Amino acid sequence: MNLHGQNFIGDQPGPGGRETFYAVSPLDRRQLEPAFHAATEAEVNAAMGLAEGAFNGYRETTGGERAVFLERIADEIMALGDDLIARAHLETGLPETRLTGERARTVNQLKLFAQVVRDGSWVDARIDTAIPDRQPAPRPDLRRMLIPIGPVIVFGASNFPFAYSVAGGDTASALAAGNPVVVKAHERHPGTSELVATAIRRAVTACHLPAGVFSMLHGPGKTVGIALVRHPHACAVGFTGSRVAGRALFDAAAARLEPIPVFAEMSSLNPVFILPEALRERGAKIAEGLKNSVTLGAGQFCTKPGLVFGLQGTEFEQFQQSLAELLKTVAPATMLHAGICDAYHKGLAHVSGIGGVKMLARSEQNPDAQKTQGESVVLCTDARTFRGHAELAGEVFGPFSILVSAPTFAELEAIAQDLEGQLTATVHGTPGDFQKAGNLLRLLERKAGRLILNGFPTGVEVCPAMNHGGPYPATTDVRFTSVGTAAIYRFARPVCYQDFPAALLPAALRDENPLGIPRVVNGKRTQESVDR
Amino acid sequence: MNLHGQNFIGDQPGPGGRETFYAVSPLDRRQLEPAFHAATEAEVNAAMGLAEGAFNGYRETTGGERAVFLERIADEIMALGDDLIARAHLETGLPETRLTGERARTVNQLKLFAQVVRDGSWVDARIDTAIPDRQPAPRPDLRRMLIPIGPVIVFGASNFPFAYSVAGGDTASALAAGNPVVVKAHERHPGTSELVATAIRRAVTACHLPAGVFSMLHGPGKTVGIALVRHPHACAVGFTGSRVAGRALFDAAAARLEPIPVFAEMSSLNPVFILPEALRERGAKIAEGLKNSVTLGAGQFCTKPGLVFGLQGTEFEQFQQSLAELLKTVAPATMLHAGICDAYHKGLAHVSGIGGVKMLARSEQNPDAQKTQGESVVLCTDARTFRGHAELAGEVFGPFSILVSAPTFAELEAIAQDLEGQLTATVHGTPGDFQKAGNLLRLLERKAGRLILNGFPTGVEVCPAMNHGGPYPATTDVRFTSVGTAAIYRFARPVCYQDFPAALLPAALRDENPLGIPRVVNGKRTQESVDR
Repeated sequence: MNLHGQNFIGDQPGPGGRETFYAVSPLDRRQLEPAFHAATEAEVNAAMGLAEGAFNGYRETTGGERAVFLERIADEIMALGDDLIARAHLETGLPETRLTGERARTVNQLKLFAQVVRDGSWVDARIDTAIPDRQPAPRPDLRRMLIPIGPVIVFGASNFPFAYSVAGGDTASALAAGNPVVVKAHERHPGTSELVATAIRRAVTACHLPAGVFSMLHGPGKTVGIALVRHPHACAVGFTGSRVAGRALFDAAAARLEPIPVFAEMSSLNPVFILPEALRERGAKIAEGLKNSVTLGAGQFCTKPGLVFGLQGTEFEQFQQSLAELLKTVAPATMLHAGICDAYHKGLAHVSGIGGVKMLARSEQNPDAQKTQGESVVLCTDARTFRGHAELAGEVFGPFSILVSAPTFAELEAIAQDLEGQLTATVHGTPGDFQKAGNLLRLLERKAGRLILNGFPTGVEVCPAMNHGGPYPATTDVRFTSVGTAAIYRFARPVCYQDFPAALLPAALRDENPLGIPRVVNGKRTQESVDR
Repeated sequence: MNLHGQNFIGDQPGPGGRETFYAVSPLDRRQLEPAFHAATEAEVNAAMGLAEGAFNGYRETTGGERAVFLERIADEIMALGDDLIARAHLETGLPETRLTGERARTVNQLKLFAQVVRDGSWVDARIDTAIPDRQPAPRPDLRRMLIPIGPVIVFGASNFPFAYSVAGGDTASALAAGNPVVVKAHERHPGTSELVATAIRRAVTACHLPAGVFSMLHGPGKTVGIALVRHPHACAVGFTGSRVAGRALFDAAAARLEPIPVFAEMSSLNPVFILPEALRERGAKIAEGLKNSVTLGAGQFCTKPGLVFGLQGTEFEQFQQSLAELLKTVAPATMLHAGICDAYHKGLAHVSGIGGVKMLARSEQNPDAQKTQGESVVLCTDARTFRGHAELAGEVFGPFSILVSAPTFAELEAIAQDLEGQLTATVHGTPGDFQKAGNLLRLLERKAGRLILNGFPTGVEVCPAMNHGGPYPATTDVRFTSVGTAAIYRFARPVCYQDFPAALLPAALRDENPLGIPRVVNGKRTQESVDR
């Protein structure tokens, strides 16, 4: 495994400037070779210039050609073999089995978007044919479809070194739509990023695509990342990470002379409501599921349940005891990096110190600082304390949750009403519970992008029906998802072609429907060709 | 016609504060009774509170119920009869025939959205059924659809007192999606706004909908408008107007604690390129069409062609002469209001004074200031002057255009490359011209939301295939249209329901497909019910 530590400016190496950094393994806090070179301003400009230059060629590739490209990226990632898993393990501390699973998900995601663009119907083709003799004015021939938006900036996320990073969902959907991508690699897994970038570059070359279709830069988000977002050629941004960083990117994009859309997925507490009959019937089982969901992957999922609400009483107390017993046995786990581990412990200390908040349970085994470990912790409090302290509704990223007991169902509803935007909201209940929970569900529908009954929010399926998004601060644009096939719509824009002769129309809009896609023709959905 | 001049706070009158204003007829600069009362901060809060309160009830109405509501609004607008046309004529100076046509368009637009929601397929329903025995983890049952986004703020536009105002496209699409609407009435046609608001209120009552589903406030955009955009209950904004005002709303929305989407349609020059063979073959005919498009409605359309490019030479000179002859005969016309008329004359004076810019033609008849008239004007210049003065590519709202002659085709392409975002771009050419214009068309596709061949940009069809949008500054969100059925997507958001029992699922997502809509089930498009 020979890493060069340079930037990828299309097919050219970018040696960077004087600023270098190293990955540090959270497993033992050792520095990993080689040095990585933060991109210079000139390299930012060069990558963006190449992306813009590549856009004209790339956006005119067929869906089939882009599908082959995405599949080739998947194959090239697999061809990296164990080296990729080994480096990612060193850089992130994530277990190799988890990384192997995440790699499979990433590769399948690329293949899913290949299917989407090969199928071609995602462009939402609509045709209204001319009515030359209409009164008072003739109707022209109008044909509309989605086309790619332009060069997309993608920020790698620390907690998914494959699935939300260099070749993750943002990159896959942006490339599928026909956009060049410039990735700002996450600083905590630069070697993993370089390996995946190498795989993408191989696919670009093998598919004879313009070099600028993919670039990757190293360096700080505050300099290199912001410079990319501010660059005039940037047309959209995909980001997964902290609320502070995501908001900074959103603000920078909104302050541009020409604002561009930012899809930042940032912060979510993923509240869980446990209703009384469910608690009585299967409290122990819910406790077990909750423990698993809170501590999975050291709690480093954007869908980790960080808030759990129930009605105060003996059942909820028993539930808390069951959860406490289970949680104690969870061993501390290596977190992604020292920054996340430190922030976790600071967050824990802060919320634990609030009056009225009690420690319910923590891992019996102490965390090993040398291994960057975080212990699992569950706190408990009452609704009054919770509602009096906004910090308790702020995300603490790690294997941590707060249980809140409310005196009445109305109080649960009031809490739901006050929640910020979330990626998910979960309710455990029996049919009897749900009969009384109509208002609660309606409240939660306004707060979250995905509602889960009798399950747990971790585990985000990559499929057409997924919605991974939600009201701010879960994301900066509630109208889109970052996971699943609909994620492609973030990076596309409609264009209408008026009175175009057949030869100048895109294939999706030609009379004979050469792509065989479903279209809306004169208001009717059809796969037939157009008679005119 | 008894106007009260008050605000509509749901079904309650809002007497406003001490600040009042009058409409002034541009036809004779006379003040029109009655006084209108700018809404107070308390009334802003009351209207938003009612909208939020109404949302829960309104969003659960069926598509059929919302369709009846929209159709009822259309009927109530027609029932206002000639009074509406008369008041709109007094307030805007627009001819009664034009207003009658615009009313028909507005009513048809409401009925079109009624069709869209009665049909129901706009919600883009997607279902992935559970796979309990899948390895390594079971797949849950996932069902996703679009739901309404929440209370929408709509700003009335001055140039379309019906079609882009109180019951215009923004209101129709927002109500269709299931959102309450709070309108900030345009200050230049408050009486027209009051009449239309009365019609909507009658429809709300007749359909037994919650009162807060519609409110309308009077007052300045800078105070009342901004207060609405900043209000915590506001979830999205629709606006058509000036670049300065649109950007101010966008900035206010982006600076919120929770940013919300703003769909502002602002500024467009609608460039027209006339290629050599077309010029030779039918220059006179193009000149006639262009004259009509530039001067239609005193040039007060967002799609008015404000820039015309051709290759220098005798044919373009002849074309200019033809256009000049035609334009001279166009009588000055009353503009919408004194502010627009003054801005028009200031804009004219500014660009006419630039060195290298020549007056090609103007209306022979002088404008009558007492009638708020604007004369038609066409200037001409060369590509070098045009590229040296950014002001020449700024919108001058009125019956005005600039002809630019370029020395080479490459220069035309360079100009296209430098253009800001546009609603439309037009090219006149023969099949021979288009063979050489591939690059020009590709450039224009990036610059505009609608491309027109051998036609003119004025006249925006309301239909599924329309795209009325474009890159900034044409709009603030290139991903959406404000005209046509797809406009509904601005005011909707996806939600995914995981493992919901049938009784708790929205109708669009139930197994038996009670709405009979096309859905994507396990990746396949189908209208069948789901077996599980």
